[in-house]
Amino acid sequence: MSASGVLAIDAMGGDRAPEIVIAGLEIAAERHPQVRFLLFGDEARVAPLLAAHPRARAASTLRHAPEAVPNEMKPTAALRLRGSSMRLAIDAVAAGEAEGVVSAGNTGALMALAKIVLKTLAGIDRPAMAGIGPSARGDFVMLDLGANVQCDSRNLVEFAVMGEVFARTVLGLNQPSIGLLNVGAEELKGDERVREAAEVLKASPIAPLFHGFVEGHDIAAGTVDVVVTDGFTGNVALKTGEGTLKLVRDLLREVFASSLAAKLGYVLARPALERLREWLDPRRYNGAVLVGLNGVVVKSHGGTDALGFAHAMDLAIDMVLHRFNARIRDELTRMRPAEAQAPAPSAMAG
Amino acid sequence: MSASGVLAIDAMGGDRAPEIVIAGLEIAAERHPQVRFLLFGDEARVAPLLAAHPRARAASTLRHAPEAVPNEMKPTAALRLRGSSMRLAIDAVAAGEAEGVVSAGNTGALMALAKIVLKTLAGIDRPAMAGIGPSARGDFVMLDLGANVQCDSRNLVEFAVMGEVFARTVLGLNQPSIGLLNVGAEELKGDERVREAAEVLKASPIAPLFHGFVEGHDIAAGTVDVVVTDGFTGNVALKTGEGTLKLVRDLLREVFASSLAAKLGYVLARPALERLREWLDPRRYNGAVLVGLNGVVVKSHGGTDALGFAHAMDLAIDMVLHRFNARIRDELTRMRPAEAQAPAPSAMAG
Repeated sequence: MSASGVLAIDAMGGDRAPEIVIAGLEIAAERHPQVRFLLFGDEARVAPLLAAHPRARAASTLRHAPEAVPNEMKPTAALRLRGSSMRLAIDAVAAGEAEGVVSAGNTGALMALAKIVLKTLAGIDRPAMAGIGPSARGDFVMLDLGANVQCDSRNLVEFAVMGEVFARTVLGLNQPSIGLLNVGAEELKGDERVREAAEVLKASPIAPLFHGFVEGHDIAAGTVDVVVTDGFTGNVALKTGEGTLKLVRDLLREVFASSLAAKLGYVLARPALERLREWLDPRRYNGAVLVGLNGVVVKSHGGTDALGFAHAMDLAIDMVLHRFNARIRDELTRMRPAEAQAPAPSAMAG
Repeated sequence: MSASGVLAIDAMGGDRAPEIVIAGLEIAAERHPQVRFLLFGDEARVAPLLAAHPRARAASTLRHAPEAVPNEMKPTAALRLRGSSMRLAIDAVAAGEAEGVVSAGNTGALMALAKIVLKTLAGIDRPAMAGIGPSARGDFVMLDLGANVQCDSRNLVEFAVMGEVFARTVLGLNQPSIGLLNVGAEELKGDERVREAAEVLKASPIAPLFHGFVEGHDIAAGTVDVVVTDGFTGNVALKTGEGTLKLVRDLLREVFASSLAAKLGYVLARPALERLREWLDPRRYNGAVLVGLNGVVVKSHGGTDALGFAHAMDLAIDMVLHRFNARIRDELTRMRPAEAQAPAPSAMAG
């Protein structure tokens, strides 16, 4: 069996691991019968769970990991834990045994381990965290969500390239549009990094896909398919949007419990409200991808449930099966100095 | 009559000026019978509107302004328009004829003119744009919303001080809590500016009000009353929240129109849904304040209606009547190097 279609899973990461991991694996194994899983975790705890989940057991190989990375552990300490389930899962990708890894564990540790063990893709300066969210015009992808607090214009351009490939690979869009997040007030359209990045993108082979600057409200409006920004702003924007959705969900729950008439109203509108709730369900958007490394790395939310973890696995499987990294390599080749490929003056004369 | 309780109004700023400005003034004049207004605008257009709005006419003095700042005009060009309604309104504050100014016009021009004409308050390095939004635990104030794309830790500390006074003055809170916006992932809790600002705040007289770092989702959760951040992040966060609310509003409209049962359900739940809609109404949060200048400067959304403009005027009136700037001066005195006020060693010995 080739490495294609093999995913390494950190069975011990997340608030309710390994239970929700194995329950999520059961769902993913049914959805993707062609994929095999390498499971890393405490054998004594994971084996009994596998016994109760026949599809997960049939699709996976369990390897014992003597340790697990605690949620509060600093990345520097996690780097020293050579036998952690997270470390061994990433090692399996580095060794070519798997093409991607999924973990719901410690985010900082996962980013640090993945960067050090897998290394960045040739041509990429810094990996970025990418995630999907809902908009009025379908799903969008945003990056960076927090892998890089500070970014320069080169980083932003690379994020745009990786985001474009992400939108084609995962969102299935042929011609995804790309926007650079900026502020609106006239005087300020002036963050130097974003202006520089915009100039580079306008002169690049992906210029036809580059929409230009977008503002915060354009994210949910779906003005573009790919929202590019630095890790500080992206992290805040993502969580602000999530927090606002949660506020409205909580308020609607109160509204529909506030009177007998409102309760009856809820019952009548329920099918349509349920469709809306499912569409906005945060589990559907679970899974942030660390893009730009030699291997697919997906971080599931630590507090998710089996369905949410299965969504994070879907994401990793999509990326592995659609050759995400190979496509980035192609795109980088296309982006690389057009001059180098242009005929030299002498050739033109001749 | 003293300058206290006099507001200068740019009658020509905004998409539907001067009509909505005068209609908004009519509402504000009824709400605040003690306040007088100095109106600046095209006499030929404004006078007939005043004739139709008796309360607005009775409470205000109209002064002719031969020009208006167009929405697309660059701040540098607006600075040269000496006779614009915006400029004359700001000049009135500088001359002590009014204590604050409200405009729905060109944001960049308003910021530039206000900074140059009014100058920053003694002890403040940079003014900031502050605005109010809804959270699960009542309204919050966030700043900066875009006056400063780049900020250092000193700016953030000053924003915290001004935001605290804003929350006491405008939100009526006795002990507002203050949070510094930061990112969550462990590895990154590391923007240097915010870490430095946090250290300064922890050692300051407002330390008891300082909650520490907050993340994007804390904004709508109402974890703190004052959210402090740089102008780039604040602008994106504000607009992301607004955009998300708009998305949900639009989707709910679709939901309740999607079937006969859903329509009936809407009718039954309507009173409670209307209360929610009113509470989240963006007009209720209209008005961003440029704090830190010698005078109160309120920017209304350009696309708002009369009710929204009246809300922006409410904000300015609150700040003027509650001596916003005097309170900032007091707070800055309290913040200023405790050493300077501490008894000298010799005095202690004696």
